Amino acid sequence: MSPRTWLLDSFEAAVKAAGPARIVPEFLPHLSDLPVPPKGRVLVVGAGKASAAMAVAVENSWHEYYALEGIVVTRYGHAMPTRRIKIIEAGHPIPDENGMQAAQDILQRVMQLTQDDLLLCLFSGGGSSVLALPSEGVALADLQQVTQQLLRCGASIQEINTVRKHVSRIQGGRLAAACQAPIHALIISDVTGDDPAHIASGPCAPDSTCFLDALTVLERYAIDVPPSIKKVLNAGNRHLLDETPKPGSPIFKHVRNLIIASARQSLRAAKHFFEQCGINALILGDTVTGEARDVAKTYAALIREIRLYPDMLKAPIALLSGGETTVTVHGSGRGGRNTTFLLALLIALDGLDRVYALACDTDGIDGSGHNAGALITPDSLLRAREAGMHADFYLANNDTFSFFSKLGDLVITGPTYTNVNDYRVILVL
Amino acid sequence: MSPRTWLLDSFEAAVKAAGPARIVPEFLPHLSDLPVPPKGRVLVVGAGKASAAMAVAVENSWHEYYALEGIVVTRYGHAMPTRRIKIIEAGHPIPDENGMQAAQDILQRVMQLTQDDLLLCLFSGGGSSVLALPSEGVALADLQQVTQQLLRCGASIQEINTVRKHVSRIQGGRLAAACQAPIHALIISDVTGDDPAHIASGPCAPDSTCFLDALTVLERYAIDVPPSIKKVLNAGNRHLLDETPKPGSPIFKHVRNLIIASARQSLRAAKHFFEQCGINALILGDTVTGEARDVAKTYAALIREIRLYPDMLKAPIALLSGGETTVTVHGSGRGGRNTTFLLALLIALDGLDRVYALACDTDGIDGSGHNAGALITPDSLLRAREAGMHADFYLANNDTFSFFSKLGDLVITGPTYTNVNDYRVILVL
Repeated sequence: MSPRTWLLDSFEAAVKAAGPARIVPEFLPHLSDLPVPPKGRVLVVGAGKASAAMAVAVENSWHEYYALEGIVVTRYGHAMPTRRIKIIEAGHPIPDENGMQAAQDILQRVMQLTQDDLLLCLFSGGGSSVLALPSEGVALADLQQVTQQLLRCGASIQEINTVRKHVSRIQGGRLAAACQAPIHALIISDVTGDDPAHIASGPCAPDSTCFLDALTVLERYAIDVPPSIKKVLNAGNRHLLDETPKPGSPIFKHVRNLIIASARQSLRAAKHFFEQCGINALILGDTVTGEARDVAKTYAALIREIRLYPDMLKAPIALLSGGETTVTVHGSGRGGRNTTFLLALLIALDGLDRVYALACDTDGIDGSGHNAGALITPDSLLRAREAGMHADFYLANNDTFSFFSKLGDLVITGPTYTNVNDYRVILVL
Repeated sequence: MSPRTWLLDSFEAAVKAAGPARIVPEFLPHLSDLPVPPKGRVLVVGAGKASAAMAVAVENSWHEYYALEGIVVTRYGHAMPTRRIKIIEAGHPIPDENGMQAAQDILQRVMQLTQDDLLLCLFSGGGSSVLALPSEGVALADLQQVTQQLLRCGASIQEINTVRKHVSRIQGGRLAAACQAPIHALIISDVTGDDPAHIASGPCAPDSTCFLDALTVLERYAIDVPPSIKKVLNAGNRHLLDETPKPGSPIFKHVRNLIIASARQSLRAAKHFFEQCGINALILGDTVTGEARDVAKTYAALIREIRLYPDMLKAPIALLSGGETTVTVHGSGRGGRNTTFLLALLIALDGLDRVYALACDTDGIDGSGHNAGALITPDSLLRAREAGMHADFYLANNDTFSFFSKLGDLVITGPTYTNVNDYRVILVL
């Protein structure tokens, strides 16, 4: 096998390990305190890029036992055919009218449940955007505008979600607060630390942040905040009204949030793959945050170390990592976290030989492109020069998508119907 | 020994390994093509934080053999008593009148040397600033203003030096170009990669950057450039006049640039120290660049990995690294690279137990403070809270010096009279 194939196959192994079809059935029987069948109805709701695929898996496992019904909202292009659960497609990463309508329907149907019913939630990454229901008095356009800014300023996903939860009628535990029935939430985690409060902005999870935190985030990143959102946040902060439900609240007594897939399992699968190929693999962490280009520089120093001074770590070795890096956009180009990471790595390695790397989003979409990510080979820099491309320029202009597109080194998978965040592998041979 | 003592003692070992008194004598006899004694004079010139200490070491080794003479310029507070070599103190990191006068004297005396003489150069970190001689037509104030901006914008030292070399009459190989005598330059490296072209902005080293590169850097970081500097750079770029001497130029035929100390030796000494204490030590690289806070996040993920999923790497382990991180200043506070790295690490670790870390500049001065750096212990965050300090706020405001000052966790050594850049150790017990 060629190193390029190793990279691609390891990514495939990582994605497969997080696939709903494989994981959801494993976890459904674990709903140990579930009355079988529940006296009342089973309502299935969900949101996120993996959620349609999760709904299919639930139907496949349960359709013989329960009269399932429900609504699941996913990103455009991520729907799958279902039996009874309705799938809605909506806007991501900027919320839209479709998602708002779906969120409203979900909230209404959840409010009708009684203690005898069961609410089964299917959350995954992307849920914050597709399940957006702005607070009263906040227009969708205002939420869109703030979201757009937050995504481009370098704020962490935790910071962005802190804002989202405080201008939402459904996130930050508010869905749970509206529900009389016991809740089982199956969650595919795309956030570092796998805290249910941050996946899909935690519709059924306690929220430990407050209105003041949301205001602080907006101030820290100098966000231009529409008056309607300012009003909601200031009023919440001043009068301590309408705060999201906090950890320890009785609201969560009958709520169970269960992480069923995360970056860790995927990295383990990739590690296993390399070990089968006879290559040592080291996981550098499944919770890597920070600016993509600076993470790349930090790793480049480690790669030089391994190459020049083999010691505890020596080639051949696969360095695996997951998490969610950030990109502060300066230029006018196109590019996601993973192509940004790779181009910065390529520049920092400066032609160091026998180093290959791949960085992809496990959901199949890096940023706003149609690619999952890209890969670099030892001759990437040379090929770029031959094609008349100045790598520094592309990085400075945040045009990393174009760089790899022109090189023919994008990794394109289409939607993977799951999402456990970034997958990076650096192969030092 | 306590973990705190381990950290401090390892830093001492790292600094000692780069001490001029120890290293310079080792390398003086290696000047193998040196006529003993040279027919003519031996002129000693130098610039940098370690350079006075280097001059002392040269005098101690050579004063019986040669009638040494010379001028060495160092940072304020870094002078040492010498026999014959004159020591001048000057401004750092912003150049001043003293340094400009010294640079002029040095250039004049070097221009008087003949082929029978010998020029011995002693360069170390900080030399770019203390040996500043602006191009004709550029006022010192203009150079100061651009330097100030470059230091605060997040540009790498290589980028900053690219500008410096193109508005200088002495750097970027121009000192060598002005010299008829053979040149031996002993260099203590404080730049990642240990390229002589970047230490003290390479007065005797070939420069592979050009006027256009300097203009690009200024544009990339949106620097407000005084007209005099614009004029010099544009004229140089347009007419290809007065370019710095390039690699391969005959100017360098009788020039020898020798790196005598670098981060690597210091990290090795620290590794040896920990191993003597029975603790495994891993060097994560001696060339780490990137924003200090993002490097910290990347390492935090690795620390969590080691703590939660011991595998190839397991506690107890000391993670060592060197290089030069950058800090893009947002707030109005005080803080250097090392306190910024540590505070970001502290926040990212979020109270993870049994993790200790120290980050210091090996020159004894982190940024503009009087401290070498600082250290963190597992209870730092708790102690900060008890003292009413909100760590996030201090980091956002770049007020990392105050944070550690209030905690009583600054590391203060005074000038160490050497400089091999950052020293970081993270102890995972």
